[in-house]
Amino acid sequence: MKKLLLLNFLILLSSSGFSQQALGGAGNIISPEVHEDNTVTFRLYAPNAREVKVSGEWMPQKEWATIPAEMKMNKDSVWTYTTKPLPSNLYSYSFLVDGVKMTDPNNVHLVRDVATVSSIFIIGNGKAENYSVNDVPHGTVARRWYNSPSNKEKDNRRITIYTPPGYETSDESYPVLYLLHGMGGDEEAWIALGRASQILDNLIAQGKAKPMVVVMPNGNYVQEAAPGESSKGFYKPNFQLPFTMEGSMESSFPDVIDFVENNYRVKAEKESRAIAGLSMGGFHSLHISRYYPDTFDYVGLFSPAIMPGENVKSPIYENLEETLKQQKENGVELYWIAIGKTDFLYKSVEDFRKTLDQIKMNYVYRETEGGHTWSNWRDYLVELTQLLFK
Amino acid sequence: MKKLLLLNFLILLSSSGFSQQALGGAGNIISPEVHEDNTVTFRLYAPNAREVKVSGEWMPQKEWATIPAEMKMNKDSVWTYTTKPLPSNLYSYSFLVDGVKMTDPNNVHLVRDVATVSSIFIIGNGKAENYSVNDVPHGTVARRWYNSPSNKEKDNRRITIYTPPGYETSDESYPVLYLLHGMGGDEEAWIALGRASQILDNLIAQGKAKPMVVVMPNGNYVQEAAPGESSKGFYKPNFQLPFTMEGSMESSFPDVIDFVENNYRVKAEKESRAIAGLSMGGFHSLHISRYYPDTFDYVGLFSPAIMPGENVKSPIYENLEETLKQQKENGVELYWIAIGKTDFLYKSVEDFRKTLDQIKMNYVYRETEGGHTWSNWRDYLVELTQLLFK
Repeated sequence: MKKLLLLNFLILLSSSGFSQQALGGAGNIISPEVHEDNTVTFRLYAPNAREVKVSGEWMPQKEWATIPAEMKMNKDSVWTYTTKPLPSNLYSYSFLVDGVKMTDPNNVHLVRDVATVSSIFIIGNGKAENYSVNDVPHGTVARRWYNSPSNKEKDNRRITIYTPPGYETSDESYPVLYLLHGMGGDEEAWIALGRASQILDNLIAQGKAKPMVVVMPNGNYVQEAAPGESSKGFYKPNFQLPFTMEGSMESSFPDVIDFVENNYRVKAEKESRAIAGLSMGGFHSLHISRYYPDTFDYVGLFSPAIMPGENVKSPIYENLEETLKQQKENGVELYWIAIGKTDFLYKSVEDFRKTLDQIKMNYVYRETEGGHTWSNWRDYLVELTQLLFK
Repeated sequence: MKKLLLLNFLILLSSSGFSQQALGGAGNIISPEVHEDNTVTFRLYAPNAREVKVSGEWMPQKEWATIPAEMKMNKDSVWTYTTKPLPSNLYSYSFLVDGVKMTDPNNVHLVRDVATVSSIFIIGNGKAENYSVNDVPHGTVARRWYNSPSNKEKDNRRITIYTPPGYETSDESYPVLYLLHGMGGDEEAWIALGRASQILDNLIAQGKAKPMVVVMPNGNYVQEAAPGESSKGFYKPNFQLPFTMEGSMESSFPDVIDFVENNYRVKAEKESRAIAGLSMGGFHSLHISRYYPDTFDYVGLFSPAIMPGENVKSPIYENLEETLKQQKENGVELYWIAIGKTDFLYKSVEDFRKTLDQIKMNYVYRETEGGHTWSNWRDYLVELTQLLFK
């Protein structure tokens, strides 16, 4: 029998993809290249482009807009740009080629935020070590489906569940953090953008967080699953999801708890339940925890929206102060609020804190730099998870 | 307390991403748009581009290269192109903007094949219904880590496991399909490119496939996890992984079986074990199944590589005919080989079939149109899974 030479095999395979040929001889470009001094070089092969720019999260913003940096073409038709040293973080970025925004074709590491896909990289040696995959025991991330009988729109729903290292082989029961996404997000957001599994793996390995189950449901009542993961097929996501902040999520939330407590080895008691969320998920966490006022001993509001629109009528949002008082009287181990100084929700959170002060409810308030960003929400998750179930 | 208007909230959120501003007024573009007659329209807003083309898997290829189609700019600076009606399938495509290959910024649905990320869409009403998410019960897809004591390089390894609908709540034990990727792939390939969970969900719901557990390990001995999912961080994947077709995968494979049979409710017997793989994974399936010749009752070789390079010396690859004879004598319920007519591995598979004929080993041979493509491998998975454990 004729032997197949490995080298031939490699050459043939390397050229077999239809999508390879367009790169020409530029297949070996490394971009981004993170240097030891925390500067980063971007490269793009574009011989016919007239103008190439790079736009990234580390750049200063002015009125929501980033002013992109110009890249320069070298003699090999490769456009390059090198940053100054960057603080440790996870950053997203895009290229602008003759005005068209695109991801970096030499970087396969991408995240989707609503309808926008961006390239990402990590600058280590600092806080981003929490978001990196390190050589520690890893938990399991499962995408599964559960039944939500009280959801009249989409009762078969997708959910993401993190179980900590050792869950499958131990007899222990674990506490649970319910972790909710923002508007435009779904059951993928905290894993992809929030790096929740890496954060938990790392903090648990260091003994800084208790091993816990983290439950990430989809908070959009009419959306059974993330875009592309339901029978709706592939479509372009948007913010205009109906039934998101009008009571449906809150009223159907007991189905999520029932599913988790009937299907996982967890502690089904208030002192072992936490709920936290960002933006709209902070809104949901606020209202779920006071509407079911004896259910959660830990509440985390990350840059939360506070109240629904003026036209929303739902019993869920009535009697805010009374139900918060009830929640306070029942006892809450930790009520934790965090927001960035430039967040557009800053003022409404300030008002909400006054309400809490009036009813003499204890809470921890963390004010950080920055605005309504995933960088902040990752940091808030790192902080909050170290305070839970202790 | 001041109420936050939902409309304001939406407007603010919509403009808050740094990555939004570059799109200008073009945020509402729909691309691709799949029409009822199975034609597809692509759109790209690019006022300053001189030339925009689209290149996709449905286009004829010539010597591994696709000749892209030219898009035309309309008065709103949107470049468009509409295909002829396309046969039902999952297709990947890219744009070429002034010669630079890019994904479609209006399509968040992407797949990575080695180092190339492409946009994708599905044409339904035909065989691609098997790859679509339909309104049927869904299994669970878990990414977890297992210990492989016989792997001296990376003994903590990531693995993808599909458990069928009902697994978590039944007492039943299930048969197992070990499903192996090709060179350059990893434990994500069969889920992302192969649509394995959709295929199994759909065939099980129709009663065409038995409920089974599908185990997708990483077949690269020195790679503990897919790019970005290990402590190696984010990097650019390539084909030149060492230790892929030299015996390491085969010799450490019992660790995978041990892990599955000790951690899942599965039937631990030959008649309930299948192994299948594509290209390099077909090579692994061939050699694992004959090296452990009384372990698998079902073997699937999809466009398989047959023999390693001439310089590879490993006891795993010695005595091919003898061990195949032994496997045959021990009994194999189904030995299934499939390849496309234009696959560059066609000749070596033809030679291998002669070897099987010489030793009078029964096998099923399926010859299809096309070459070394995921389109074929998805179809082969659809066919094979309907033949297993019956």
